[in-house]
Amino acid sequence: MNALNSWHCDCCSVTGISRLEAIGELSASESELQALFEKVRNWGRWGSDDQRGTLNHIGPAEIARAAALVREGRTVSLSRPFPTQPGAENPRPAQHFMMVTGEDRHAPHLPGMEASFDYIGIAFHGLVCTHLDALCHIFRDGLMYNGRPASDVKSRGAVSNSVMAARDGIVGRGVLLDMPRALGVDHIEPDHLVTPDELEAAERKLGVTVAKGDILTVRIGRDVRPGNGDGRIAGLHPHVAGWLHEREVAVLGGDGPNDAMPPNRLSAWPNPIHELCLVGMGMQLLDNLDLERAAKLCAELDRWSFQIVIAPLLIEGGTGSPINPIAIF
Amino acid sequence: MNALNSWHCDCCSVTGISRLEAIGELSASESELQALFEKVRNWGRWGSDDQRGTLNHIGPAEIARAAALVREGRTVSLSRPFPTQPGAENPRPAQHFMMVTGEDRHAPHLPGMEASFDYIGIAFHGLVCTHLDALCHIFRDGLMYNGRPASDVKSRGAVSNSVMAARDGIVGRGVLLDMPRALGVDHIEPDHLVTPDELEAAERKLGVTVAKGDILTVRIGRDVRPGNGDGRIAGLHPHVAGWLHEREVAVLGGDGPNDAMPPNRLSAWPNPIHELCLVGMGMQLLDNLDLERAAKLCAELDRWSFQIVIAPLLIEGGTGSPINPIAIF
Amino acid sequence: MNALNSWHCDCCSVTGISRLEAIGELSASESELQALFEKVRNWGRWGSDDQRGTLNHIGPAEIARAAALVREGRTVSLSRPFPTQPGAENPRPAQHFMMVTGEDRHAPHLPGMEASFDYIGIAFHGLVCTHLDALCHIFRDGLMYNGRPASDVKSRGAVSNSVMAARDGIVGRGVLLDMPRALGVDHIEPDHLVTPDELEAAERKLGVTVAKGDILTVRIGRDVRPGNGDGRIAGLHPHVAGWLHEREVAVLGGDGPNDAMPPNRLSAWPNPIHELCLVGMGMQLLDNLDLERAAKLCAELDRWSFQIVIAPLLIEGGTGSPINPIAIF
Amino acid sequence: MNALNSWHCDCCSVTGISRLEAIGELSASESELQALFEKVRNWGRWGSDDQRGTLNHIGPAEIARAAALVREGRTVSLSRPFPTQPGAENPRPAQHFMMVTGEDRHAPHLPGMEASFDYIGIAFHGLVCTHLDALCHIFRDGLMYNGRPASDVKSRGAVSNSVMAARDGIVGRGVLLDMPRALGVDHIEPDHLVTPDELEAAERKLGVTVAKGDILTVRIGRDVRPGNGDGRIAGLHPHVAGWLHEREVAVLGGDGPNDAMPPNRLSAWPNPIHELCLVGMGMQLLDNLDLERAAKLCAELDRWSFQIVIAPLLIEGGTGSPINPIAIF
Repeated sequence: MNALNSWHCDCCSVTGISRLEAIGELSASESELQALFEKVRNWGRWGSDDQRGTLNHIGPAEIARAAALVREGRTVSLSRPFPTQPGAENPRPAQHFMMVTGEDRHAPHLPGMEASFDYIGIAFHGLVCTHLDALCHIFRDGLMYNGRPASDVKSRGAVSNSVMAARDGIVGRGVLLDMPRALGVDHIEPDHLVTPDELEAAERKLGVTVAKGDILTVRIGRDVRPGNGDGRIAGLHPHVAGWLHEREVAVLGGDGPNDAMPPNRLSAWPNPIHELCLVGMGMQLLDNLDLERAAKLCAELDRWSFQIVIAPLLIEGGTGSPINPIAIF
Repeated sequence: MNALNSWHCDCCSVTGISRLEAIGELSASESELQALFEKVRNWGRWGSDDQRGTLNHIGPAEIARAAALVREGRTVSLSRPFPTQPGAENPRPAQHFMMVTGEDRHAPHLPGMEASFDYIGIAFHGLVCTHLDALCHIFRDGLMYNGRPASDVKSRGAVSNSVMAARDGIVGRGVLLDMPRALGVDHIEPDHLVTPDELEAAERKLGVTVAKGDILTVRIGRDVRPGNGDGRIAGLHPHVAGWLHEREVAVLGGDGPNDAMPPNRLSAWPNPIHELCLVGMGMQLLDNLDLERAAKLCAELDRWSFQIVIAPLLIEGGTGSPINPIAIF
Repeated sequence: MNALNSWHCDCCSVTGISRLEAIGELSASESELQALFEKVRNWGRWGSDDQRGTLNHIGPAEIARAAALVREGRTVSLSRPFPTQPGAENPRPAQHFMMVTGEDRHAPHLPGMEASFDYIGIAFHGLVCTHLDALCHIFRDGLMYNGRPASDVKSRGAVSNSVMAARDGIVGRGVLLDMPRALGVDHIEPDHLVTPDELEAAERKLGVTVAKGDILTVRIGRDVRPGNGDGRIAGLHPHVAGWLHEREVAVLGGDGPNDAMPPNRLSAWPNPIHELCLVGMGMQLLDNLDLERAAKLCAELDRWSFQIVIAPLLIEGGTGSPINPIAIF
Repeated sequence: MNALNSWHCDCCSVTGISRLEAIGELSASESELQALFEKVRNWGRWGSDDQRGTLNHIGPAEIARAAALVREGRTVSLSRPFPTQPGAENPRPAQHFMMVTGEDRHAPHLPGMEASFDYIGIAFHGLVCTHLDALCHIFRDGLMYNGRPASDVKSRGAVSNSVMAARDGIVGRGVLLDMPRALGVDHIEPDHLVTPDELEAAERKLGVTVAKGDILTVRIGRDVRPGNGDGRIAGLHPHVAGWLHEREVAVLGGDGPNDAMPPNRLSAWPNPIHELCLVGMGMQLLDNLDLERAAKLCAELDRWSFQIVIAPLLIEGGTGSPINPIAIF
């Protein structure tokens, strides 16, 4: 009864049948992806009840060491603005309504009180809002991280793998790999998938090594690309998932949605990074960061690691949260 | 044309004409409050264009010193759950809707994709949501911090003193003054206003001294009071504003709304802490924190200071933001 | 993971475990109710694909005859105001936000344009919003009208029995049975269930006879009862369902939710009118009408039938709609 | 502080500075439009307190006569679906969320109850939602109908000229002028403005004459135009306002927004029909009707007048309402 022909994707800007094209050749065969999924799968690694996944890579020692990175006493947000403006990448813009403006500030019941109020609403997944993906956001063959069934995500909220796993914040060492800077280009082109080799080249170039428990952010220069906002965004090669697994990274983030956009509709793995990380590894993702100011500060200070704090809202049963990650130098 | 007789306050649970009672005697005379307002007023102190107010007390040195407080590598959220359940203190509950459940995870346009999505909406001011009050939330005689007019808060958003002043996070030393513990009671009674003397007694008892640039949180034990949730909440005495001013505190927070509830309808200063701090000092407030777990951890570690990170959403023109403050030990 | 202990009903003001009391004795035994359900069940009566249920009682003849009732040329709304004010019966109030006020009327991109805009949002089921219940709103043992499974009501919308069955409006003869007037009381008490005998007494007293295809509205005087708004509302006795079935009524409405409130938590049939009508008969319901002005007009004109038009919004997959039924005399 | 450069119009699909082009030559000079405004202005005509404007053209006689048009007993909706799908003409799509699906139908507190619930939200102005424009939606030089100031439209709602003026429904004779049929074309081209001459040609061709108190709907064939949905929509020539004034029409509606889209940004009268009708005449407008099925039925029955009922929601202080107008034959 719903007009599914004209259905519009809840997560991206893909509309109906209009974008059938694949991203060049398939980046990896399905059997390769399946094998990779088996390899990185952490199901059971931290117990059958675990809902934290690779957050388990961050222990007290990692938290304490990361704080020692605070030297200059400077902070920078990794968040884009709350996305209230419609656009090709923002088909369902966030809401920000002033319930009471300054003109109408007098409360009828409290003669002395003068106040303004507002309301916000957002479907935070998608291509524009800076957000955390919880482990219940993505499924593979009906299962999510640690083998829990998709049916756990009910209309009253998820009963497992919700964003509440990160309620006390994700705090640790942040690493920024600025790929355009490392590769000597202005930005990564939309049809490119960043490879593990390129990440390692960036490590060498920038003088930083991704280590156990790190919160890794990868800059593709999305926001400085001419044409930015057209729904075409570079992503990471599926093999990066294997590399993240070996390095025991805790969280992955990027200035895009980490997977290339638009998704490859011809593949059974249309968003392989999401599938391999969230479902397989139990790795939460940070999508749509703003890494421009952080990259400038890293370059100015000539260091690419810092303390980072990610503080999702305590949405019980939620599939994620809008966030404002703070990098502290 | 709106039925203002039955109007329901946007910020608290006061309905219409039902709660005329004052909180015992007026805590301070109007002339006293006016004098206090003049005394703590920081208008112009950091320039006529300043929109950060007492956040100016936090400089690089304060940020760096606070990070040195991270020793045990433990974190704790100071946030209550996203308040979707109605109640006497929550007349306009937040919304959390599952747009797509696990059962319906297959995207019509992407055969391989399996995902769930949700939506959140909230009018975050009030008595239940853990939130940051921006400097454009409260006015006094039509003016807000630094003398800017209430008319700056328009229906399309505030053009000054918005929450964007804190976009890069509020990071520094957090101090928790656990008043019930210090005063040897289970909780602070709703009809009590915590005084500067009591805060200083708590400092001595807990062995911590509030200093310049601190983010001070004051626990009244709201959540452990029998009857909790009935709209009656202890607050701070107006004189505390003078004390905060002398100590050069950067931000004030509490497990209640900092002002006693219900507000004193007979006074021209119904929410004196809000008026003195936000309007006078330019001090942002943290309302409705959950300080229970943090207080337990402080007691366990026998220390009442820690690194704290507050990361509001980047709501352009917003009067505040829901937050999940993270205390890091 | 959701705090179900404190869960608040989506449809009424019942909170958690606070209202266990039954409405006196059970009004009918469970076996009686089951037998009544079998008796009134219209499944298959209009074909196995039918989604209109008792709307099938309204044919062209009924529509045309109803129009002949328009003589005085007067109209009256049967709707309550859009319920934006919180209250005991309105735990999740509707939203009405002014996106652009008159002060901010100038559109940035169109210098000559001056306009205001607003936004509305509502969870229309419950005790206060005047709304239509579609046939997919209620289930019995996992089934809805015509035997369709509850699983047809998915997170992307219902694929059968949605409000779209009434997209072309419900137009026909409206009958108002003013029970307090007929029974010589001010209002029906909350603990009373109106019986078929009482409805027939009202027919005789008011001089009107409910007939095939009628849209019947029953006034209990909810809005004039002292204490109105406390969550206690009179309803119809389950046997009324059998009576409606015999009379071949098309739609039932009332100034309450038709079932007595609070619902009988001890019964397996907590809302028997909803269950018998929506699920069994396929009869859509009109909840929370405002019948005060219509009753006055009926009394003034001394006639209790009129043309009525109910025009739900075209919410594809929706379980109902807010409505403003118009009675035309 | 808001990024007004990229501001997106609340009412149409115009983004930022991207659509500067005018619709060919200006259709009328500004002095002509100003003179026309003076001519059609009904301010004071029905008293200085009047908020109903041209609804005053509909009296009991008009309502009664319209009901006599019901002969065949058939009804048809003039509403488009609730617009939840994004698109070029729908940059801020409506929301329809299932709060509780059929799978999760069991209420925690009522073991016997099985129900589903949903939520709707909409900013109903714009190019897609079928809605009624109230008289407080548009201003001219800071004034709205009857000389009331724009400042009456406050953040808590409009205190005059709100949609509540139509609370008892708009009921009367509907007339459909099917312009493509009358003019022998498939649809009216976007760059065309329908003139009074063309309306009169349609009257002659279809055999119907627009009279005092009529609710006139003009079909341009928007929905059958190839390319439909691209933001380009035919409208009415400003001179039509004068013609409506002479004919004493009560309400104007169309399958587009009545004014041509995109609006003429070079003119001081970018939406002249809105300005002349709503502000000058006090004539409420019906935007974005679906006239396809009604036109087919009119052609089948070979008559172009019918009873029509428009029932806005009772949004106190609202600038309009989503509607489902019902034509009854």
